[in-house]
Amino acid sequence: MDYSKVFYEINKSLVSYVDHGAVASYIPELQKISPDKFGVYLCTVDGKNFGFGDSNEKFSIQSISKVLSLTMAFEIEQDTLWKRVGVEPSGNPFNSLVQLEYDAGIPRNPFINAGAIVIADVLVSKLENPREDFIEFVRQLSGNNQIDYCDRIAQSEKSKGHRNAALCNLMKSFGNIDNNIHEVIDFYFDLCSIEMTCSELARTFLFLANYGKDPINGNQIISSSKSKRINAVMQLCGLYDEAGEFSFKVGLPGKSGVGGGIVVVHPGKYSMVVWSPRLNKKGNSNKGMRFLEEFTSYTESSIF
Amino acid sequence: MDYSKVFYEINKSLVSYVDHGAVASYIPELQKISPDKFGVYLCTVDGKNFGFGDSNEKFSIQSISKVLSLTMAFEIEQDTLWKRVGVEPSGNPFNSLVQLEYDAGIPRNPFINAGAIVIADVLVSKLENPREDFIEFVRQLSGNNQIDYCDRIAQSEKSKGHRNAALCNLMKSFGNIDNNIHEVIDFYFDLCSIEMTCSELARTFLFLANYGKDPINGNQIISSSKSKRINAVMQLCGLYDEAGEFSFKVGLPGKSGVGGGIVVVHPGKYSMVVWSPRLNKKGNSNKGMRFLEEFTSYTESSIF
Amino acid sequence: MDYSKVFYEINKSLVSYVDHGAVASYIPELQKISPDKFGVYLCTVDGKNFGFGDSNEKFSIQSISKVLSLTMAFEIEQDTLWKRVGVEPSGNPFNSLVQLEYDAGIPRNPFINAGAIVIADVLVSKLENPREDFIEFVRQLSGNNQIDYCDRIAQSEKSKGHRNAALCNLMKSFGNIDNNIHEVIDFYFDLCSIEMTCSELARTFLFLANYGKDPINGNQIISSSKSKRINAVMQLCGLYDEAGEFSFKVGLPGKSGVGGGIVVVHPGKYSMVVWSPRLNKKGNSNKGMRFLEEFTSYTESSIF
Amino acid sequence: MDYSKVFYEINKSLVSYVDHGAVASYIPELQKISPDKFGVYLCTVDGKNFGFGDSNEKFSIQSISKVLSLTMAFEIEQDTLWKRVGVEPSGNPFNSLVQLEYDAGIPRNPFINAGAIVIADVLVSKLENPREDFIEFVRQLSGNNQIDYCDRIAQSEKSKGHRNAALCNLMKSFGNIDNNIHEVIDFYFDLCSIEMTCSELARTFLFLANYGKDPINGNQIISSSKSKRINAVMQLCGLYDEAGEFSFKVGLPGKSGVGGGIVVVHPGKYSMVVWSPRLNKKGNSNKGMRFLEEFTSYTESSIF
Repeated sequence: MDYSKVFYEINKSLVSYVDHGAVASYIPELQKISPDKFGVYLCTVDGKNFGFGDSNEKFSIQSISKVLSLTMAFEIEQDTLWKRVGVEPSGNPFNSLVQLEYDAGIPRNPFINAGAIVIADVLVSKLENPREDFIEFVRQLSGNNQIDYCDRIAQSEKSKGHRNAALCNLMKSFGNIDNNIHEVIDFYFDLCSIEMTCSELARTFLFLANYGKDPINGNQIISSSKSKRINAVMQLCGLYDEAGEFSFKVGLPGKSGVGGGIVVVHPGKYSMVVWSPRLNKKGNSNKGMRFLEEFTSYTESSIF
Repeated sequence: MDYSKVFYEINKSLVSYVDHGAVASYIPELQKISPDKFGVYLCTVDGKNFGFGDSNEKFSIQSISKVLSLTMAFEIEQDTLWKRVGVEPSGNPFNSLVQLEYDAGIPRNPFINAGAIVIADVLVSKLENPREDFIEFVRQLSGNNQIDYCDRIAQSEKSKGHRNAALCNLMKSFGNIDNNIHEVIDFYFDLCSIEMTCSELARTFLFLANYGKDPINGNQIISSSKSKRINAVMQLCGLYDEAGEFSFKVGLPGKSGVGGGIVVVHPGKYSMVVWSPRLNKKGNSNKGMRFLEEFTSYTESSIF
Repeated sequence: MDYSKVFYEINKSLVSYVDHGAVASYIPELQKISPDKFGVYLCTVDGKNFGFGDSNEKFSIQSISKVLSLTMAFEIEQDTLWKRVGVEPSGNPFNSLVQLEYDAGIPRNPFINAGAIVIADVLVSKLENPREDFIEFVRQLSGNNQIDYCDRIAQSEKSKGHRNAALCNLMKSFGNIDNNIHEVIDFYFDLCSIEMTCSELARTFLFLANYGKDPINGNQIISSSKSKRINAVMQLCGLYDEAGEFSFKVGLPGKSGVGGGIVVVHPGKYSMVVWSPRLNKKGNSNKGMRFLEEFTSYTESSIF
Repeated sequence: MDYSKVFYEINKSLVSYVDHGAVASYIPELQKISPDKFGVYLCTVDGKNFGFGDSNEKFSIQSISKVLSLTMAFEIEQDTLWKRVGVEPSGNPFNSLVQLEYDAGIPRNPFINAGAIVIADVLVSKLENPREDFIEFVRQLSGNNQIDYCDRIAQSEKSKGHRNAALCNLMKSFGNIDNNIHEVIDFYFDLCSIEMTCSELARTFLFLANYGKDPINGNQIISSSKSKRINAVMQLCGLYDEAGEFSFKVGLPGKSGVGGGIVVVHPGKYSMVVWSPRLNKKGNSNKGMRFLEEFTSYTESSIF
């Protein structure tokens, strides 16, 4: 299928679409982005690539990095990982402390902030040089040695990070954080600060569209079983408390970030990234979700 | 694939599996079932059928009927249905009033009790003879005129139904129930009381494995788009607050009932039912979940 | 002290006070009241009486009757009563189901709706003719045979009573309601519908200002110990989730109703009623609270 | 009244009372106390003193110090204090984050941990040398220059203080903490670490039994109005989520600490301290509560 044409057609059909969403405001640095950027990129497992719009412009991937840190931690800890974090949707806003207290310090899933902080704690414990080792892993997946953290973004978040410090302290009080709180939180914010383009990010996620194996270079990143399970967690927990809406309308496993990016994978077929910085009230890209809904309807590519 | 052989192999591998679950106890009539019953049935979209164990014995389908009432209400109301019920996982035990109060009378999804009661209210409003029209719909889907309600079960539930009456009254106070409370609750309990065998139930759900079209007689029950969306809701909300665990381990859209049945569909491939009455603490069939996990691993048939 | 003069002075000082509160709107009948009515009445334990404004006009006492039904049920059940209802403030809006579910059907105290419904259930079980016996008790306390229910008000509430039916059904599901739900709810709404004037109500509550003994006729209504305990419950739970604010500013045990009445007792000294139908957001009389604050400051009559 | 004799009689009547409570275990240092210590001390406003048992032995006053820090902060900030902390009972365990999140960072009252941390933040902002100035204030109230912090206890708590750090970070994220988190938390733990005997503590609280004025030296510590209001807050919020039970049974404003101490004041009459380290499940002294219940029944000294 010529996805470029599909991108073009859908974009045309959305010409009168007015996006009332606003760029994420809680991090000063993120607010500087031009709100009307729009990019799409799709990589098929058999090596084809399709881009549209601002697909070669860097943006802050934010929470999308949580899938990559989960991948690394799952490979290291295997199934013992799930003693410290669940796989259930949270049913609550993405940074709520209520659920965490109710569940005695065990986050519902690795994609809410608390869960991603536990994953960061695992990596701090198990990696020799967490910051260096993690970015190296991402560079391998993306086939791009230039991928890097953005210290300016990370710094901006750290200065506002009291709520995440609250989460981390609460989990520490329940015994679910092993390392120094500041070290864990700093690493967590570093993870969120990575910048990529749509094309780099789609390339990076290709292994999850191909049962754990990178189809370009043939590397088996993780087992087929783990790949399916990570996709399952994305399907149920990938879009904060809008995962149901997203599954209902888009029908693919996906993960969003407050930078306006959304990654989806169609197992056996493709990985795809859309980027549009205006967010809805749930913190997901407004136009990104709309575009994906049109795209999977048009191409009939839901997994359901 | 010869699924019969797979059933046999998995069953053999579970020979030492000790099921510590208990039969549902809150409904006196359900407690009478022999706890060690076990049946499996699979129908492929190209007309093959595979059974194992007690697959031709009737059991109470209970909440599995919520998928069928949703199908009927979705077809009648189209997308206006979603003004009265959401599609998000609940993140809470399946009959909690907390979420309902927080969300001003709008249930999180159609598979928690409150949501299924709203669906029942829709059908009471729109069907001429709700009880007769609904069973007629199920008979058509199953191709079996003998499918029926079990008045004994329904009566047993009605005598214990104060919590559901509480849910219904609460939603009525928020304006989300149109009809008389007793009429809605009675119809709701009727729906849950339907009895089927594994083979009848797998046959009934075949249209959801075939994009809304019954592959046996060619009837388009619902549109392909609606079929995908119902499957998406099953994936995210079909196993009470264990939907994440089920997606993670089994990887298919499914719906369970406290009678011990679980239905799954693999879009484009098959529908399948397992039945084993011993439940885990979340109210899902213990051995049923385990069997499905082994089955999808063995056959590598996750949608992810 | 000449309380008449105090009433006059405080009322004068409030001449520029603009009351932005609104009359209770959820019961159609209550909305018909003239919003600017204002009455005060005070009875001392040594037989003096002081009135001001509309103190001889009937109004709907609503939740204030919960103190009287508690008094009767406490005398009947003694301390076994507290197995079915607590004495802790709720910390939540006055009709929340959340707390009730968390506490397995045991209401936090007898003054939230759920608690008052349990008290009604006790009286339905133990009184021969609940409706007649209760009003007879109130007539004795007030020394007035004309006190009666208002069927018009009760009927108006019954038609809107789905939330209370939800509470009652939920408690029944936990085993904390013994009688038929409709019978309990109907009796509960009857209790709330009683109409009295400020002077009648102040007279009725005089026994709680006098350690359980009616100072006019010398009857010991309840023991001194029970009287103190009922006052303690009023202090902690008498003004919905504004009990803290009321204790802080007024400093006396009190009970309010959505009809705009507030009763307070100063143990050893007086009982007092203010009535002003405009309510604040918590459901308490706006001007009533303000007047009482000024009054206890002026007379330095806090119990603290 | 000869209170010594009353103490003796009540203690005798409790000879067969077996206290199944346990000494506070979450702070290693507190666990070292001998669990069967028991002391009582009462100071009347007209200068009489009555002691019993271990009333001259030091213990950790813990949360009782929250009344003293509130007194100081209320005097400094006047009524603007109440913009940052409420006066309503919490209805939840004493260190819950749920309520705090629901109320956007405003603690329900100054006696739950979150509220006391806000009070500590106020003192850090307004006192030149918080640690020195506060202990100086306590020394003045007690008339004893030897009163001091216990650094060993404070240190022990600081090493376990992740939950309080979570509370403080959460409030900071809502803008309700002005100072550095570590400075505030450290000062908070210092406050809790003060050690006094029953007699010193009863003497210290005498001003609250005498409308804000120290009856021994005639100093007006705070206004009569503020004294009443602090007593009102104690009555409604002084015993964690057992304030209702305490008001019901004891009938006096009081404040407890996990060190096993309870202070009560009878306005116009006396201040009194009991100390017994075994706690009930709510964190209040088991025998202390029982003794006070017997005492106020025996002496008929409830404020109600």
